[in-house]
Amino acid sequence: MKTERGKNILLAHGSGGRLTQELIGSVFGRTLSNAILDKMDDSAVVKLDGNLAFTIDSHVVSPLFFPGGDIGRLSLTGTVNDLAMAGAEPLYICAAFVIEEGFPQDDLESIVSSMSLAAGEAGVQVVAGDTKVVERGAADGVFITTSGIGLIPASVRISSSAARPGDAVIVSGTIGDHGIAILSKRQGMDFQTEIRSDCAPLGGLVATMLDASRRVRTLRDPTRGGLAATLNEIAAASGVAIEVDESSIPFRSEVRAACELLGLDPLVLANEGKLVAFVARQDADKVLSAMRGHAYGAGAVIIGEVQESEKPRVYLRTLLGSRRILSMPTGEQLPRIC
Amino acid sequence: MKTERGKNILLAHGSGGRLTQELIGSVFGRTLSNAILDKMDDSAVVKLDGNLAFTIDSHVVSPLFFPGGDIGRLSLTGTVNDLAMAGAEPLYICAAFVIEEGFPQDDLESIVSSMSLAAGEAGVQVVAGDTKVVERGAADGVFITTSGIGLIPASVRISSSAARPGDAVIVSGTIGDHGIAILSKRQGMDFQTEIRSDCAPLGGLVATMLDASRRVRTLRDPTRGGLAATLNEIAAASGVAIEVDESSIPFRSEVRAACELLGLDPLVLANEGKLVAFVARQDADKVLSAMRGHAYGAGAVIIGEVQESEKPRVYLRTLLGSRRILSMPTGEQLPRIC
Repeated sequence: MKTERGKNILLAHGSGGRLTQELIGSVFGRTLSNAILDKMDDSAVVKLDGNLAFTIDSHVVSPLFFPGGDIGRLSLTGTVNDLAMAGAEPLYICAAFVIEEGFPQDDLESIVSSMSLAAGEAGVQVVAGDTKVVERGAADGVFITTSGIGLIPASVRISSSAARPGDAVIVSGTIGDHGIAILSKRQGMDFQTEIRSDCAPLGGLVATMLDASRRVRTLRDPTRGGLAATLNEIAAASGVAIEVDESSIPFRSEVRAACELLGLDPLVLANEGKLVAFVARQDADKVLSAMRGHAYGAGAVIIGEVQESEKPRVYLRTLLGSRRILSMPTGEQLPRIC
Repeated sequence: MKTERGKNILLAHGSGGRLTQELIGSVFGRTLSNAILDKMDDSAVVKLDGNLAFTIDSHVVSPLFFPGGDIGRLSLTGTVNDLAMAGAEPLYICAAFVIEEGFPQDDLESIVSSMSLAAGEAGVQVVAGDTKVVERGAADGVFITTSGIGLIPASVRISSSAARPGDAVIVSGTIGDHGIAILSKRQGMDFQTEIRSDCAPLGGLVATMLDASRRVRTLRDPTRGGLAATLNEIAAASGVAIEVDESSIPFRSEVRAACELLGLDPLVLANEGKLVAFVARQDADKVLSAMRGHAYGAGAVIIGEVQESEKPRVYLRTLLGSRRILSMPTGEQLPRIC
């Protein structure tokens, strides 16, 4: 069925009646079609055996379309990445849409197409969904919540509480791209080079890393709260100190310039296609070289190490050589970043 | 940790930083605590083996608190029921909150407590979650999306495409209670007897039915779009005609009165604690008596039967004895009913 161009979403599209069926058929069913989704039951049925990772994330990013992605790609990759960070192979996704009455159906189609492309890239299937429509002014455009299931290989034990003194801390590439891409689009800022979101599915990169070493202890994607929040969470969960070297942390020069201009700390900016890995020292180089062979890990570097500590702490060795505590971010720098 | 009374949710509660951690600790962690959730990783890890049902639903009900329930109970039971309708034992739930800045923290706590009580009643665990905060006016109070996993016993084959000519059509109790409860609260209508939502988890009732018979073919909870939408979906999926007898469909007298007053068709009103079952004729009485022994099936009755047909159709034998087509609902009677 072909969607009519130029139409807007009506409250009746969320009624559970004929218009809901038409919307599901024309937008979701057509674009995301697979054997499981096509059954159109309320629940998908999938056969699995073993340790499963199970996760959920709501996406409320504003604007909905930004350089390097949109809410469709972001909502798919965000959940894929949470599964990958548990050491799981991401497999199945459910997606729920809360749509504001009057939202352009063309935009919804673009978003679902983008989600479908990202699912293809990530090797996952969207197997069930839900659509609610709220009246004009009761939501802002569209919010997308995705939930995912992945299978954790029997040999894999990845946890945010598994970092050990001596482990190397690796980031997979430049930090802060997503945060600055959203902010510059939102503010209408114009840089010589467009800063694009790094929004990408990381399941393949993680598989490469786990193939290279059985001593990958902890994986995490530094999204909201950025590298600072992620490192603090891992330090607390593992009961260790983490020291990172500011000069080793990779930034695009445009991101650094934008941060200086706006007075932002790049270490709290969100990333949507980067990961932080804690790897046993003896395997760090092996993992690093495996990462660099993957498109989404080409810029991987070691940025620090884990140290013994009575109190969980994150230290930053600054460019000037001093050592300061890098604390958990407090206020809200950038609302609706993801 | 004790939540401070009288506080409102701030944008910074969604930042991924310290306030997010505090909110998760004080509201979600404290109320929903279990061994899996307490790990506070982005993904829950659960061990399962077999056919899994996997589903998602967003909940945007307005008002958030209504006679017989609130968005917390509704969002938990809604997803539990989708799993149960697949013949699955509901097991694990993930919950994602989109909260409007300024939302009272006390209300959030009530909602999460109610969700926790419903989880206890349903025998499921909330194993992972997510919280986003949007600025004032960008959402209406709180939206909750829940996703669930359940395990389908090897012997069970329930599907909306499995209804066969001769099957009995059973409903588990009175129809339209949730729709009228929401509407009367929203409109400030005053009936002599308060009409309460039927909002309830149906996993236990379904287990009882599946114990009684291996010939339960199709299960569905008639939520949005009501009995009319559900029967039409099943007729289409199974390629059959369904004839139901208006005089057999159970309604509370207050619901009937409210529908007459408001000019509403009770057959399109949402239910949140009722199911429709299609059961092989020879097992119908056995299933019916098993249902009547369960609190949520005490009012179960046979309302019709499946007939052979070239075209999928739903027929209503009216109170006057005529037979008319009961079609898929078209417009939106009651937005934000769930």
